[in-house]
Amino acid sequence: MSATRTTVGIVGAGPAGLMLSHLLARAGIDSVAVDHRTRAEIETTHRAGILELDSVRLLVDAGVSGRVLTDGHEHRGIDLRFGGESHRIDFQGLAGASTWLYPQTAVFVDLADARARDGGDVRFGVRDTAVADVVDRPVIRYTGADGAAHEIRCDYLVGADGSRGICRHAFPESRRRWYFREYPYAWFGILCQAPPSAAELIYARSGRGFALISQRTATVQRMYLQCDPATDPTDWPDERIWAELQARLAGPDGFRLSEGPIIEKTVLPFRSFVQEPVRLGRLVLAGDAAHTVPPTGAKGLNLALADVRVLAEVLERAVHRQDPALLDDYGVRALARVWRAQHFSYWMTTMLHTPPGADAFDLRRQEGELAALVASEAGRRYLAEGYTGWPAH
Amino acid sequence: MSATRTTVGIVGAGPAGLMLSHLLARAGIDSVAVDHRTRAEIETTHRAGILELDSVRLLVDAGVSGRVLTDGHEHRGIDLRFGGESHRIDFQGLAGASTWLYPQTAVFVDLADARARDGGDVRFGVRDTAVADVVDRPVIRYTGADGAAHEIRCDYLVGADGSRGICRHAFPESRRRWYFREYPYAWFGILCQAPPSAAELIYARSGRGFALISQRTATVQRMYLQCDPATDPTDWPDERIWAELQARLAGPDGFRLSEGPIIEKTVLPFRSFVQEPVRLGRLVLAGDAAHTVPPTGAKGLNLALADVRVLAEVLERAVHRQDPALLDDYGVRALARVWRAQHFSYWMTTMLHTPPGADAFDLRRQEGELAALVASEAGRRYLAEGYTGWPAH
Repeated sequence: MSATRTTVGIVGAGPAGLMLSHLLARAGIDSVAVDHRTRAEIETTHRAGILELDSVRLLVDAGVSGRVLTDGHEHRGIDLRFGGESHRIDFQGLAGASTWLYPQTAVFVDLADARARDGGDVRFGVRDTAVADVVDRPVIRYTGADGAAHEIRCDYLVGADGSRGICRHAFPESRRRWYFREYPYAWFGILCQAPPSAAELIYARSGRGFALISQRTATVQRMYLQCDPATDPTDWPDERIWAELQARLAGPDGFRLSEGPIIEKTVLPFRSFVQEPVRLGRLVLAGDAAHTVPPTGAKGLNLALADVRVLAEVLERAVHRQDPALLDDYGVRALARVWRAQHFSYWMTTMLHTPPGADAFDLRRQEGELAALVASEAGRRYLAEGYTGWPAH
Repeated sequence: MSATRTTVGIVGAGPAGLMLSHLLARAGIDSVAVDHRTRAEIETTHRAGILELDSVRLLVDAGVSGRVLTDGHEHRGIDLRFGGESHRIDFQGLAGASTWLYPQTAVFVDLADARARDGGDVRFGVRDTAVADVVDRPVIRYTGADGAAHEIRCDYLVGADGSRGICRHAFPESRRRWYFREYPYAWFGILCQAPPSAAELIYARSGRGFALISQRTATVQRMYLQCDPATDPTDWPDERIWAELQARLAGPDGFRLSEGPIIEKTVLPFRSFVQEPVRLGRLVLAGDAAHTVPPTGAKGLNLALADVRVLAEVLERAVHRQDPALLDDYGVRALARVWRAQHFSYWMTTMLHTPPGADAFDLRRQEGELAALVASEAGRRYLAEGYTGWPAH
């Protein structure tokens, strides 16, 4: 068995784990990150693609990569579409901020490259990962790609291992509370080979349900349809998907989507989850390991990056003062943002989706809300602030 | 049988009916209003007491009375209280508008006095009111206080007879749609003999449920507690009410309500209702006859006054051009405001009340929303705009 000692052990080498490792290295703190997935597996798992301004700043200013600025697309607003009409939410004019279309896989590649460039210790494709003694003397144990047992002893342990990870389970039931919400709908997501149908995102509410039109490249686009969580993608041939998308976007302005072959079909569940507290002794959770949000509003990756920005700063203090209790400051600051983001995601979701069994009152009230929102500069600005991200604190 | 002819027959002589009659008289259009209640009955039915700026302007500028400016109390904001802390929503600073504390009974008295002063034809305390031939040749029939049968033939008929009135039933089921929502809670309202506990309204969310602290006079106050709709006021002795109110307002700032004898206890149901369309031939509905909102946000009376402000203008055009189809413009304009107000009332209600069976996620998300709202100038302004009333259109 090989043994390693490090200051911060990190379970999970997705964007949260790698960004934390990167930020710690800049502060002179050594870390080791492990992930059961291979680098290739993570690079090919398509996820959200909208970065808040502060997420872009973190990538660029922390020296990860400037590629987001050249390969990403600045989005200066979104369209809210309802009643067959589009209403512009001008993020720049309202909140002085943009978002960037830049896939999560690109963020991961930038971070993995930066860690490799800077000599970071990141171990992909490990098996049988387990954590122990998290309160006092944390240890990560795993089986390496070579089949040998490994052990990483660390002063602090960070669980950045996502919503199906092991670290949240290291909190005994009596020491944590899980807040959970399942929504009665899902998103049917497609990738299609077609030119962009719009320059920026369109969030469309219709009597048939919600649809989101987004972009990926000049030739491949991403779109989503609100659907029943039990939807089987094989029941949806391309023609049916296009007919439904066109119908949800249709309006007197004659808007039409550019169609093309559909190359990927997936159903995304809608869940909200938060664990409190996020610290137990010398273990803390970050990103999806601590919380998940429904995809409306694209907060998931941005919350994970906001978490580790605060966590790196707090860990630095805890390491230098040798006081794990200082980590509670991370919990307070991260959870304040998490609950705002939970509400923001819930708000965007419930404002735009048709709940199954919705009665006529609900639908007209939704239209009343959307009409009030777009008619008010303050309402549009409140939305723009939430979407582009609240300032760090 | 006595018969009267008039241009506009009005069923209901509450604030909506009387204000309409007053505005029509100023435009040189004669009307007759009837109500099954006596003037004394209406004067002693306590209702909402918050007027939007435009409602105050209507009373003053249309020559009803300036008493609201001398006897009413200008409220330049409200407090949102949660987590035991008060957060000021500064209406003047945010939206350049105030609201006025001035009871609905005072609005009624001002209007009834103005109608009497100007020789308006208002018939209180009539019985067996019925309407007929509303599409082409409307007629109101009733039994007078003298026991004799009366008939009022009119060119246009306005149903301003509230949520239990007869006029909404003059629309055949096939010609109207009812939108309805019952909420799973009610308000326990009290009048108490005590000095004011605060200068302006406090909307308080607590883990025990919602409470609203409002004022009436220097010696009598009005307060409300969220309760189960099946609550029996006799189960609530004064001590229990005060203990519950104090607990819902308690916080580290040591805030305490001034207590005193409770002189009235009532349970108010929470309902939303809208009828569409609001016109059938020569009949139109206004105020509570067409829509009701839950009391959170105090929109009911203000919506009724906004209705008749638009209706008077549209009726004047219809009368002069002898074209009842022109009344559809009233429906479009009034319903746009009604659905915004329905959403606003729903928003204020769901943000501040604890739904029965709420899970821990709901409660933390609510706190997340309130925290996000008060932290954002745009959020506070969006609330202030809705509360003080949208501009006329």
